[in-house]
Amino acid sequence: MRIAVFGTGMVGQALAARLAQLGHDVMVGTRDVAKTLARKEPDSRGTPGFGAWHAAHPRVQVGTLPQAGAHGEILVNATSGDASLEVLRQAGAERLSGKVLIDVANPLDFSKGMPPSLSVCNTDSLAEQLQRSFPGLLVVKTLNTTNASVMTNPAAVGDGNHTLFVCGNDAGAKAKVTELVRSFGWKDVVDLGDLTGARGAEMLLPIWLRLFRLLETPLFNFKVVR
Amino acid sequence: MRIAVFGTGMVGQALAARLAQLGHDVMVGTRDVAKTLARKEPDSRGTPGFGAWHAAHPRVQVGTLPQAGAHGEILVNATSGDASLEVLRQAGAERLSGKVLIDVANPLDFSKGMPPSLSVCNTDSLAEQLQRSFPGLLVVKTLNTTNASVMTNPAAVGDGNHTLFVCGNDAGAKAKVTELVRSFGWKDVVDLGDLTGARGAEMLLPIWLRLFRLLETPLFNFKVVR
Repeated sequence: MRIAVFGTGMVGQALAARLAQLGHDVMVGTRDVAKTLARKEPDSRGTPGFGAWHAAHPRVQVGTLPQAGAHGEILVNATSGDASLEVLRQAGAERLSGKVLIDVANPLDFSKGMPPSLSVCNTDSLAEQLQRSFPGLLVVKTLNTTNASVMTNPAAVGDGNHTLFVCGNDAGAKAKVTELVRSFGWKDVVDLGDLTGARGAEMLLPIWLRLFRLLETPLFNFKVVR
Repeated sequence: MRIAVFGTGMVGQALAARLAQLGHDVMVGTRDVAKTLARKEPDSRGTPGFGAWHAAHPRVQVGTLPQAGAHGEILVNATSGDASLEVLRQAGAERLSGKVLIDVANPLDFSKGMPPSLSVCNTDSLAEQLQRSFPGLLVVKTLNTTNASVMTNPAAVGDGNHTLFVCGNDAGAKAKVTELVRSFGWKDVVDLGDLTGARGAEMLLPIWLRLFRLLETPLFNFKVVR
């Protein structure tokens, strides 16, 4: 499948690499291709500069936001929550219409220091904001409740015996995304129903962040024991 | 131990029964003892009327809010979130000072219909509101992320192989509460740190409520797989 990944950070890199490894035709979209490819140094969290990462993943194409928007049959939003709306706007609503958007982003607000709070929650969610702004998109929220390593390789934690949540308003889009995440190795994929389920999924972040600090590793995940 | 339980609904009944069964000296506190004991009919969710429940649990004492506040060495807040502050006020701040409060309540706001939203979240929590209002209390948040049957008998789900969260500002209070919940059968008790951890614990409610609807049973719980 032709897949566009928006986002050049840790999550975008992990998803683009995994999708390409699985044989998909992947393009990463970025505002300024030359500037993005020029980044060779790791950031403060140790994520490789995108240029260095791309040298090791030459099969992944890199394009502008409109190019990636045109390329993808499926789109992946792996941008930071506060950039998501603007990135999709620049990709061009007319190119996105009718396509599935896998929304992996979290509405983390770092403006008041650490730990971040959520910029939207409780009675709304980032996924719903994106869906309202781009009614033509088929938004499916998933993968936002795990670290990049775990989302692309769930077997990295507890033999993959834990849960991934998925929700969205379009059953066909959800089925397609569920198939895709199963190809990553996800076994327990729980359908939370329509896109308002994204509120609960995004509101897992505060306890996720707390556990990350306490366990001193992102290699954990929630399992719904039933 | 002498334990006071505030709250006469499903959670209060379950906790009072379990604590009495474990040999503790339990008093349930309520605004109007005669009126509470006169309730014989189940409510809309099938919770027994308190009078009928109490007839089957005669070892549990019933008292006014000030009587319960005076009785308990440990206090349990099992009221609805919107009543918690007022109930503790009526119990009397001077009687509560220096005591451990196990806060099981969730700030669910049903005023805009179903599903409920949270009346406080993200940058604050009900547990922190209680702690600020009663600085003398040693507030420990726990047990709010499971159904009443599961909280008092974790083995009811997956052989008890799932997680309970606990947080609070006082290490001694947390140790006491952890010992108490272990006596219920909890094996994996994760200390989230100080009371700001209650934000994440209370923000689990939206996904819990969604899962409750989808699974059509409250007999499930989260496990932190690591």
